[in-house]
Amino acid sequence: MADPILFHFDFSSPYGYLAAQRIDALAARHGRTVDWRPMLLGVAFRQTGMAPLTAVPLKGDYSTRDFARSARFHGVDFHMPSRFPIPSQAPGRLVTWLKATEPAAAIPVAKALYRAYFVDDRDISDAEVAADVAARSGVDRAAARAAMDDPQVKDAFRRDVDEALARGVFGSPYIVVDGEPFWGVDRLDQVDRWLASGGF
Amino acid sequence: MADPILFHFDFSSPYGYLAAQRIDALAARHGRTVDWRPMLLGVAFRQTGMAPLTAVPLKGDYSTRDFARSARFHGVDFHMPSRFPIPSQAPGRLVTWLKATEPAAAIPVAKALYRAYFVDDRDISDAEVAADVAARSGVDRAAARAAMDDPQVKDAFRRDVDEALARGVFGSPYIVVDGEPFWGVDRLDQVDRWLASGGF
Repeated sequence: MADPILFHFDFSSPYGYLAAQRIDALAARHGRTVDWRPMLLGVAFRQTGMAPLTAVPLKGDYSTRDFARSARFHGVDFHMPSRFPIPSQAPGRLVTWLKATEPAAAIPVAKALYRAYFVDDRDISDAEVAADVAARSGVDRAAARAAMDDPQVKDAFRRDVDEALARGVFGSPYIVVDGEPFWGVDRLDQVDRWLASGGF
Repeated sequence: MADPILFHFDFSSPYGYLAAQRIDALAARHGRTVDWRPMLLGVAFRQTGMAPLTAVPLKGDYSTRDFARSARFHGVDFHMPSRFPIPSQAPGRLVTWLKATEPAAAIPVAKALYRAYFVDDRDISDAEVAADVAARSGVDRAAARAAMDDPQVKDAFRRDVDEALARGVFGSPYIVVDGEPFWGVDRLDQVDRWLASGGF
């Protein structure tokens, strides 16, 4: 069986959110699964010297416009959150914990978290809010809330983030297909052809 | 008659080169023309604090790989130039001059300059090389060569670059359709739909 496609994303990333709506179906069309890997753009920014898109002069105004337009282009609900960007440790830890303890819930909860932030304008950087979202997806709320403060979960997430950075993950979404890296929701068409052809 | 589509590009930009292969045909399908506007990414970088893609840690290696892969994806010849990036004042001035004096030659020469750099690995930042390329497209070589040193041409190009920056142009390619800005060759699908639908 082929390796899963690696889908690296930050919960604060609009383009990560857009890719999250399409990546599973795209993979399934080619008989592949997806490994959802939350990361922390802030940690990557420290290494690359980059900054959040909306903090860059000129590019910031454009990006805000492009988030919403790209969502319309892809037919995806989108509402610019009132707080942006957010630190995404809490949802990242939650998904890391679910992958280890209740893997069938990990992707549904990740999608619900993204939707809570980019559609319902809920601040998922707050562990209480993240726990509420997990609970509505059928996860035990108290266990989810405790996991986000668990030193072992924090360490596991930190290790995942560091490992991703060590393999060159600098942005979100960052998708790896059989070793080939693709950065950005606008590379999903290349991912699709890569999966169909085995490389080009 | 509808306004031309504004196509801002830097001669040193691989994604500008890729967009240059498709923009005229895309516009023509919608009965539109294209105004090719050379710009200087270096001037924009000073305002945004950005840096050439290949100079950014992690992102640099990815970008070099993505240039070539994106060219293959789009079926476009591409060879990473041995000198990259280059200052693009000379070819920018040449095209500015042609637009004013021999407009029918401006786009063919711009395409020939891009091809000389990104296919034949010729250093078009050298005014002698740029003049050679123009001459092969039927432009008077001596006049082209002199234009690149002409203070009036230099001023005209500088004004064009400043004006673009003042209107928010921060990258290459940067395409404006009826006031709507699109950044990147990967937005050509959105440009296409925008032209078809009048906005979305």
